[in-house]
Amino acid sequence: MLPLLALLMLAAPPSGGVDAYLRALNSVPDAQRIAQWHELLGSEPHIAGTEGDARQIERLRAAFVAMGLQVSVQEFECILPQPQDAVVEIVMRGAPAAGTAGAPSEPGARRGVIPLSTRERNLAEDPSAQHPGLTAGWNAFSGSGDVTAPVVYANHGTKQDFQKLKEWGIDCRGKVVLARYGGNFRGYKAKFAEDAGAAALVIFTDPADAGTKKGKTWPEGGWANDTCIQRGSILALEWPGDPETPGEPAEPGAAPAAGTPAIALPKIPVQPIGYGAAAQILARMTGKPVPEGSGFAGGIPAEYRLEGGPDLQLHVKVVQDRARRRSANVIAALPGAVHPDQWVIVGCHHDAWCFGAADPLAGTIALMESARSFTEAAARGERPDRTVVFAAWGAEEYGIIGSVEWAEGHRERLLKSGVAYINLDMAAMGPNFGAACSPSLGEAIRSATVRVPQARGTPGEMVYDRISGGGRKDPQFGDLGGGSDHIAFNCHLGIASASLGSGGSEGNSYHSNYDTIAWYRSTVGADYAPALMITRMTNALAGLLADSPVVPLSAARHGREAQRMLQALRDRAKAPDLVAAIEPLQARAAALAQSGAQLDAALASALPSLRPSDRERLDQLLLSLDRAWLDSRGLEGRPWFRSMLAASDRDSGYAATMLPLLSEAVDAGDVARVQAAVARYGEVFGRLEKGIGDAQSLVQSASAPSGPPAPLGTR
Amino acid sequence: MLPLLALLMLAAPPSGGVDAYLRALNSVPDAQRIAQWHELLGSEPHIAGTEGDARQIERLRAAFVAMGLQVSVQEFECILPQPQDAVVEIVMRGAPAAGTAGAPSEPGARRGVIPLSTRERNLAEDPSAQHPGLTAGWNAFSGSGDVTAPVVYANHGTKQDFQKLKEWGIDCRGKVVLARYGGNFRGYKAKFAEDAGAAALVIFTDPADAGTKKGKTWPEGGWANDTCIQRGSILALEWPGDPETPGEPAEPGAAPAAGTPAIALPKIPVQPIGYGAAAQILARMTGKPVPEGSGFAGGIPAEYRLEGGPDLQLHVKVVQDRARRRSANVIAALPGAVHPDQWVIVGCHHDAWCFGAADPLAGTIALMESARSFTEAAARGERPDRTVVFAAWGAEEYGIIGSVEWAEGHRERLLKSGVAYINLDMAAMGPNFGAACSPSLGEAIRSATVRVPQARGTPGEMVYDRISGGGRKDPQFGDLGGGSDHIAFNCHLGIASASLGSGGSEGNSYHSNYDTIAWYRSTVGADYAPALMITRMTNALAGLLADSPVVPLSAARHGREAQRMLQALRDRAKAPDLVAAIEPLQARAAALAQSGAQLDAALASALPSLRPSDRERLDQLLLSLDRAWLDSRGLEGRPWFRSMLAASDRDSGYAATMLPLLSEAVDAGDVARVQAAVARYGEVFGRLEKGIGDAQSLVQSASAPSGPPAPLGTR
Repeated sequence: MLPLLALLMLAAPPSGGVDAYLRALNSVPDAQRIAQWHELLGSEPHIAGTEGDARQIERLRAAFVAMGLQVSVQEFECILPQPQDAVVEIVMRGAPAAGTAGAPSEPGARRGVIPLSTRERNLAEDPSAQHPGLTAGWNAFSGSGDVTAPVVYANHGTKQDFQKLKEWGIDCRGKVVLARYGGNFRGYKAKFAEDAGAAALVIFTDPADAGTKKGKTWPEGGWANDTCIQRGSILALEWPGDPETPGEPAEPGAAPAAGTPAIALPKIPVQPIGYGAAAQILARMTGKPVPEGSGFAGGIPAEYRLEGGPDLQLHVKVVQDRARRRSANVIAALPGAVHPDQWVIVGCHHDAWCFGAADPLAGTIALMESARSFTEAAARGERPDRTVVFAAWGAEEYGIIGSVEWAEGHRERLLKSGVAYINLDMAAMGPNFGAACSPSLGEAIRSATVRVPQARGTPGEMVYDRISGGGRKDPQFGDLGGGSDHIAFNCHLGIASASLGSGGSEGNSYHSNYDTIAWYRSTVGADYAPALMITRMTNALAGLLADSPVVPLSAARHGREAQRMLQALRDRAKAPDLVAAIEPLQARAAALAQSGAQLDAALASALPSLRPSDRERLDQLLLSLDRAWLDSRGLEGRPWFRSMLAASDRDSGYAATMLPLLSEAVDAGDVARVQAAVARYGEVFGRLEKGIGDAQSLVQSASAPSGPPAPLGTR
Repeated sequence: MLPLLALLMLAAPPSGGVDAYLRALNSVPDAQRIAQWHELLGSEPHIAGTEGDARQIERLRAAFVAMGLQVSVQEFECILPQPQDAVVEIVMRGAPAAGTAGAPSEPGARRGVIPLSTRERNLAEDPSAQHPGLTAGWNAFSGSGDVTAPVVYANHGTKQDFQKLKEWGIDCRGKVVLARYGGNFRGYKAKFAEDAGAAALVIFTDPADAGTKKGKTWPEGGWANDTCIQRGSILALEWPGDPETPGEPAEPGAAPAAGTPAIALPKIPVQPIGYGAAAQILARMTGKPVPEGSGFAGGIPAEYRLEGGPDLQLHVKVVQDRARRRSANVIAALPGAVHPDQWVIVGCHHDAWCFGAADPLAGTIALMESARSFTEAAARGERPDRTVVFAAWGAEEYGIIGSVEWAEGHRERLLKSGVAYINLDMAAMGPNFGAACSPSLGEAIRSATVRVPQARGTPGEMVYDRISGGGRKDPQFGDLGGGSDHIAFNCHLGIASASLGSGGSEGNSYHSNYDTIAWYRSTVGADYAPALMITRMTNALAGLLADSPVVPLSAARHGREAQRMLQALRDRAKAPDLVAAIEPLQARAAALAQSGAQLDAALASALPSLRPSDRERLDQLLLSLDRAWLDSRGLEGRPWFRSMLAASDRDSGYAATMLPLLSEAVDAGDVARVQAAVARYGEVFGRLEKGIGDAQSLVQSASAPSGPPAPLGTR
C-alpha cells in the first residue's frame, strides 16, 4: 500500500551550501591554538583603564590585524575608579576607636583590634597570584569613607532580606551591614544597604556557595579557599554603560554636558572579604541567632546571628578615586560577500579584575579562535554571505561599558544591520553546554548543537545528544535578560541575542586573584575541550546566521515563547481581574505561533525558488520581527530598556524579566497598569502580525507554482 | 560579570553509551550490499499465496538465519483471491452485446466492439516486465461477473463525488462507473460505487496524477505510460487483516467458526486500466461535460463527461477465485542483553503485486540492511539492551493481513513488551526524508535525523539540516493513521509507531508490472543513497529505542500534540456549543504538555543516578502513556480500532483521523455525542495524568539529592 509517500515527499528542498561552509569553519579550531590564546591574553592582570589593559588592547588589535580582518580600536572615556586603600578590622569594646589617619593597620598594635585580610594568600603552587599588578579585594564604585560601627547580618542582602530584618525589628541605620554573595547582583546589596541607612557594607563569599561546602579548595581543589575574595562593580543604575552618558556614546575627551543631573553613585564604603575573615566576625557576634528556616544560615561552621551585639564593632575604610580613564573596544570585521550591510556580531569582553583566566578569557579565547576559523576559511576562498563582526569589549566589569557605548554610538546602523549578537563571556567553563537566547534564535542554536561534538563525550556524541537527554526531550534554552555585553543588543536595540556557555567543573575562582591559567587548567582542564566545543558552537551559530540564504531567525518562536511567558505571568497573577486582563494577549500569541510556524515552513520550502531580491526583503522582514518588541517609551522608570520582551530584573540585576512591562505591572497588582501594559503589547503583537503577514505574502508570491508540502498522512 | 554560569551548568548528565552504539550500528550499512538485497528479493513476482511468495519467504528466512538471528516463520491461512480473467471492451450501439461465454476477446472480431488493453505493453528496455509470473491488471477481492452497460464518470469516486453526481441528477444504478485513481483508497471507490447501485467499476490512472502531465513516461522517464495499470486490493471492511477473523489470528487450517456472520466482500466486478484505454472510452462519451470548477476534469487530452450517452456501453468481465491460501510472516529477533522482554519492532511487508522493486522492496531492503547492521555489531560484542525484532510481513497488499494476524496472535505479549514499531513500507523512494509517527516518538525521530547524513547532500549535511530548512524550523512529522503494517500496533495496541519514508524522485510505477529493479535504478537511482539513508535512520531510531537507559518516549508530546489536534478540531467545529464542549479538554491537554515536559527534563537529568530497578519501572510507566490512549470499547461501529489517538479515516482509508472518537462526533455535528466523546477522552487524560505523576514521583525519589537545573538567566 502506501501509495502517497512518493508524491508527498517531493517538497523538502536542499538547505543550501551552508553545511559545507560550516564544515569548513569547524575544521579549523584547534585546542593547542586555543591554549596559546590563553597564554597570550592571560599573561598579566588587565583591569580596565590600567596599563595592563592598554597592552591587552594592543595584543588583541595585533592578533586581529594578523588574521587579515578590518580592525578598528574604538576608544571611550568614562569614570573608571581605582582602589587606593581598604581596611576591615574587628574592634572589640574597650579598644580605642580606629584612627582616621589612614595609616595601614599593624596587626596586634592596638588592644582589641583584629585586622582582617583583604587579600588572597600567596601560594607556592601558583606564583602568578603574587603579580604586582594585582590588587587587594575591592568593589568598584564603592564610596570612600572610614566607618566604625556595630554589625548587622543581612544574609544575601536582597530586597526580601532587608524586609525581613525590618520585620524582625533589626535596625540597619548607622551599622556596618555584613552580607554574603549570592542571590542577587552585588550592586543591589549596596543599594539596599544604603537605602536601609547602613554606614558601610562588607560582603563575603560563603563556603556554602563556593568554598569548603562544595569541595576541595584551591590549590588542593578548585573551590574558593578561605582567603579568596570576589571583586566586582557595585554600579546599579537604571541603565548600563558609562554612568554619565545614558543612551549616548562616551566619546573620549568630551566632558559630560553642562546641566547633567548628578548621578546616584554609591555613597557608603563597600568592601569584599573571604570567608576566613567573615568567620572571625561571625565568631564574635553575640546577637540573636538567625531564625530557623529563614535561609539566613550559611556554610561557615559558626552560629549565624542577626546582630553583632554591644561589644563588637567593625572598622571599614575604603578609599577609591573616581577618575576618568580611557579604555577601548577592539572591533574586527570580515565583510560579507553578498550582504556586507548585514552584521552578525560575536563578542566577549577583554577586561578583567585580575588575570581573568576564566572571566572573561574562557570566552575571549573562543572569540579569537572563532575569528581565526572564519579568516582561515576566507583565506581558502570561503567567505560568508553576511558580514561577521568580532568584538572584544572594554570595561565590561565596571558596568558593561564598552559594548553599551559602542551600541549607543551605532544605534541607527545596528537597528538596520544587526542580524544577531552572540555573547561569549566566560563561556568555556566545563563540558556541559548551555545557552540563553532571544526566542528567534532558538532553532538556529538547536541546529548548531547538532553539528558540534560534545566535549569529552562518547564517540559520536554531539552537543545535541547531551542536552536533549539522548533524544528524550526538546533542548531548552534559558531566557536572556541583561548581565553582560548582550544587554544593549538584547534590551536596547531589539537584536536577536544569545549567550553561549558551559559548566560542570568543580571549582570557582570568580573575580579573585586566583583566576589564573594555573587555576583554569587544574579546574576546567588543560585539554581545552570545553573551549574547543564553544568555539565550534560559535562557528556553527555565527556561520548559520551569516551564510544561510535567508537569515535563520524563527518566526514561530516569537508567538510560542510569548505564550509560555504569558502563561507563567498568568499563573503568577492569580487575581481574577489581572488574569482576565492578560487573557486577550494569550489568544493572539497562540495565533502568532501558528502563523509564524506556517511562515517558517513555507520559507524553508520556497528557499530554492527565491530570487536574491526576495531573499533580501525577507531578511529585512525577519529582522523586523525582533525589532517589533521595541517601544521607544521604554520601561517604567527605565527608559533605556526599550525591549518589551526582555530586561534585567529591576530588583536583583542577574535574573531576566520577560515581558517586563507587563510583568512589573502584574507584580504591582495594579489592574489599570496591567491593562495599559496589555495595550502596549497589543501594539507589539500588531507589528509581529504585520511582519509575519508581509513575509507570508512575499513567500507566496515568490513561490506561487508549488504549494506547501502536504502533511505526511501515509498509505 | 556572568557569575552564575559555572554554577548553573552543572546539571547536564552524559547521555550514556548509546551514542557509541549508534555509531557502531551506522558504520555497517553499505550501498552495494543494499543493491544485492534488491537483486535477491526483486528477482521474480511474488504475490501473496503464490509459489513466488513461498520462495520469497524462504529467501528471507535463510538470510535472517545466516545473520544469526532467532528466526520463526509464522504461517497464516486466509482468503487470498487470484485473477482468472479480465475483459474491458467498448461496445458501440448496434453492435451485438458481449457474450457470456468468457472467451478471450479477439480484437476487431465483432463490429462496434473495441477491446481495451488490461495489461502493460512489453518493453525492449526492460524485458523483466514480460515475466510469466506477472498478471494482467486486477483488483483483488473484486466480485466476479460479466456486465455490459452504459457509462457514468465519477471523478475519484469519493463519497463527495458520488454525492455531487446525485445532486446533478446522474443515476449510477446499473451503470459501469468509470473513476480515476487518487483522492481515496480504491476500496472506497468500489464501496461507494456499489452503494450507488453501479453494476461494475473501471478505475484508471489519470496522467494528471502519475503520467504525461507529471513528466516523461517509462521507459523514457519514470512516470506511468499509457498502458501502466495500478493493481491493488479493494477490501474496505471496518477492520484490517484477514476478513474472516477480526481481532483473532488466522491460524493455518482452522476453518472460520460456525455461525460467523457473512462478511460484506465486494460484489460487483472492479477492473483497473491504463490511461491509454481510458482515453478511448472518454473519446466516445457524448454526455454533458463535467461542470467547470468541479475538479472532475483530469489530464487526458479529451473532454471529461459525466455520462457516456446512449450509443456507448462498456463490457466488463472479471473472474477471480476466492480461495484460502497460505502465506507467512518471517520474524527474526536479536534478544536484548538487559531487557529481553522489551521489544523494539522494525517491519516491512515482503509481498508485492508484481516484482515490487519499489513497493515494498524499497523498504524491505532497508529492513534487511538494518538487521545486518544490528547483527554485525552484535558479532563484535555490541548488543542492545532491549530486544530488536525484524519482521517481514506477508500479504500486506491484500489487506494488511500478516502483521495484523501476528499482532492479534500476540496481543497480551505486545501490550506488555511493545516499546515501539517502525514501519518501512516502500521507504527509500528518493533523497527527501519524511516520517509520520505517534506523538511520543517525535523527539527520538528528530534525534535520529541528527545522526544520519542526508542522501546526496552537501558535505556534512545531515537529514536534520534538510528537514529543518537549515535550522530555520522545528522539523514536523506527520500524523500516523493506518494504511500499512503499523496499523495494528498504532490503532489496535497503542504501541508508539512510526512510518519512515523518503521521496523526491520523478516517477511512479506503483503496483504495476513496471515496478522493476530497472525502473527503480533508472528513477530513484542506482546509487541506493536513499536506501542507505533510510537504513541509517532505522538503525539510529531503533538503536535509540533499544539501547537508551530509559526508553526515549517523550511524555511532553502527548499533551502537546493533543493540544494541536484539539485546536484543529475546534477550528473545524465552529458551532459554539460544540466548541464549548471541547474546551475543558484543551486546558487539560495544556497541563499535560507542561507536566510531561517537566517529567522529560527531570528524567534526563536523573538518568545517571537511577538504579536498574527504577529504570525498569520508568520504562513501564512511559509505555503506559502510549497505552493510556486505548479504550476497549473501540470507535463507533469499528470496535477493532481501540486507539482513541489515531485511526484511518473511515470514508477515505488513506488519511489519518486524529482523536477519531471526538473527530467523528464533531463531524456528525451532534453535541450529545461530542459530550460523550469528551467524557471518554477525560478517562484517557486521567490515565496520562496518573502515569506522568507516578513517573515524576519515582524520578524525584530516585534522584532526591540534586534538584532540576536552574534556568540559564545569566550574569
